[in-house]
Amino acid sequence: MSTDSVQPKSGYWAGFDLGGTKMLAKIFDSQYKTLGKKRRKTKGHAGVELGLERMAQTIHQALEEAGLTPAELAGIGVGCPGPLDLEQGIIFEAPNLGWYNAPVKQVLEKEFGCPVVLCNDVDAGVYGEYRFGAARGASSTLGIFPGTGIGGGAVYRGQLIQGSKSSCMEIGHIKVLPEGPECGCGQYGCLEALASRLAISAAAAQAAYRGDAPKLRSLAGTDLSDIRSGILASSIKGGDESVRKIILRAAEYIGIAAGNMVHTLSPEVIVLGGGLVEAMPDLFVEAVSEATRHNVMPTFKDSFKVVAAQLGDDSSVMGVAAWAQKVVQEQSSSRIKTQV
Amino acid sequence: MSTDSVQPKSGYWAGFDLGGTKMLAKIFDSQYKTLGKKRRKTKGHAGVELGLERMAQTIHQALEEAGLTPAELAGIGVGCPGPLDLEQGIIFEAPNLGWYNAPVKQVLEKEFGCPVVLCNDVDAGVYGEYRFGAARGASSTLGIFPGTGIGGGAVYRGQLIQGSKSSCMEIGHIKVLPEGPECGCGQYGCLEALASRLAISAAAAQAAYRGDAPKLRSLAGTDLSDIRSGILASSIKGGDESVRKIILRAAEYIGIAAGNMVHTLSPEVIVLGGGLVEAMPDLFVEAVSEATRHNVMPTFKDSFKVVAAQLGDDSSVMGVAAWAQKVVQEQSSSRIKTQV
Repeated sequence: MSTDSVQPKSGYWAGFDLGGTKMLAKIFDSQYKTLGKKRRKTKGHAGVELGLERMAQTIHQALEEAGLTPAELAGIGVGCPGPLDLEQGIIFEAPNLGWYNAPVKQVLEKEFGCPVVLCNDVDAGVYGEYRFGAARGASSTLGIFPGTGIGGGAVYRGQLIQGSKSSCMEIGHIKVLPEGPECGCGQYGCLEALASRLAISAAAAQAAYRGDAPKLRSLAGTDLSDIRSGILASSIKGGDESVRKIILRAAEYIGIAAGNMVHTLSPEVIVLGGGLVEAMPDLFVEAVSEATRHNVMPTFKDSFKVVAAQLGDDSSVMGVAAWAQKVVQEQSSSRIKTQV
Repeated sequence: MSTDSVQPKSGYWAGFDLGGTKMLAKIFDSQYKTLGKKRRKTKGHAGVELGLERMAQTIHQALEEAGLTPAELAGIGVGCPGPLDLEQGIIFEAPNLGWYNAPVKQVLEKEFGCPVVLCNDVDAGVYGEYRFGAARGASSTLGIFPGTGIGGGAVYRGQLIQGSKSSCMEIGHIKVLPEGPECGCGQYGCLEALASRLAISAAAAQAAYRGDAPKLRSLAGTDLSDIRSGILASSIKGGDESVRKIILRAAEYIGIAAGNMVHTLSPEVIVLGGGLVEAMPDLFVEAVSEATRHNVMPTFKDSFKVVAAQLGDDSSVMGVAAWAQKVVQEQSSSRIKTQV
């Protein structure tokens, strides 16, 4: 029996997902059945203080739905964007929310009287898929989530790999084409600059403008803001071969980055998630799987599988609750050892 | 106090480094002071059975020098080339020795009556530098060892990262120039194909042939087999600017791969080792440091330092003994937990 499966006899855990537009709180029992939930708009622009108050209210409302009191909570996990101070539980910087130095842990621990653990939101999602979803039982897992950028995360033998600096795996900034196009980060040839939803939409918009993607043109015109994942999927279904080729090309770049990770971390399972993958799972998973295999040494070709994420929005909120449980229990067991 | 520093009250550990041409056994006390050592030729061509016997004899001789009996050994760590079955303790394939399916763990455990732990030799070296050398105390460490190929390893929060398939980090096969030159592994544009000692020597030999590296030409001619690391260093000292440029170019490629690892694993310390680095540590460390910084996002630029390995041949033999101790102690403490 792995230590991951050790549950406290009682105790409920909360998971919280702080997104750019909405926030979601869920209350879980020890088997990770949802007992209560509450979703609200984030309204980050109202500032850090009101935002943290809003987070607390949302958790209170989810607790009410679950019929529980704060005293019954064993801990809270919070999935957050941006660079984090994991120890102090501070969001350094969340430009989407306009938040800087938000003391999430301190405020919520005072409010609820239980331990609060912060975690990068993509890491939380990868951990959720590892514990409850597409990568359940894998000894090591790599998650790649192409969206506006490309997020990533990795679980190695039950541990999330959390960088000393960014608190998450910046797989979007692996160089797949040195001297390639400029990335938002200021570097050149990053995966994100070639294979994010934004890069794909930009290439598709050009095809639409040139007349090579008539379906896309009729669905969304040439404005990047309108060319979302679902639209791209519809354009391919509607016969835009040029858009299909753009997706396949992006998958090839993802395959280079994933191949690098196979050669280094050697994950058993590579989970693909996010809007693009949800909109066209079969096309994406097959193309990335083939491209990754193409980019690794023979001995690695059968060492991994590529799968689509299974939990959707639940991956982060479940993952972060389970990660908080693990962190809190490990800290308390190491305290016991130290006292002995 | 980290668990790494917990030592048994008594008990001696053996480290063994199985190289292509020589083997080295060392006996350590609990403070990792060397009590005895023995170095012999490997003579791999004599076959697996004689080879394993030779390994056992070498350990016996080191024990004798230490004035100890096998019964006083708490465990043996063995650093090995090639793909390994870490659990069964088998070398699947060591082409340099001509060995296939060598049951190292089984034979040595029977001979010495103590636990035997196998580990990839480069991983052992990186772990040694993490425990006792240039990366002492780092929360995470990446090792890059350019030699005939380019070996690598990583320690994350005290754990060696060991892939599910190769049992080591194949940093030499990170793609730094997709569609670049063919690598020995059959892929294209791998780091190893552009920055190994072999790739560097091949470029230097061309410079010598063309008349652009007169010092190198006079020292070693144009035969790759003669253009070793020390010769390259002498040629640069002797004024061959073309050879210096070849080294700097190789360092740039290493910087791309290291930058990828900074974005994903985010090591605090990057240790460079191996013959090339030992022959020109200042040039190499500075060039790789600069190139890595050039290839990462602003937030990562000060997140790591690049240093030269400190322990030379001792890194593997000390590292593998310490790793064996850690593995054996963790296994025994998890057995105790299970029994409770």
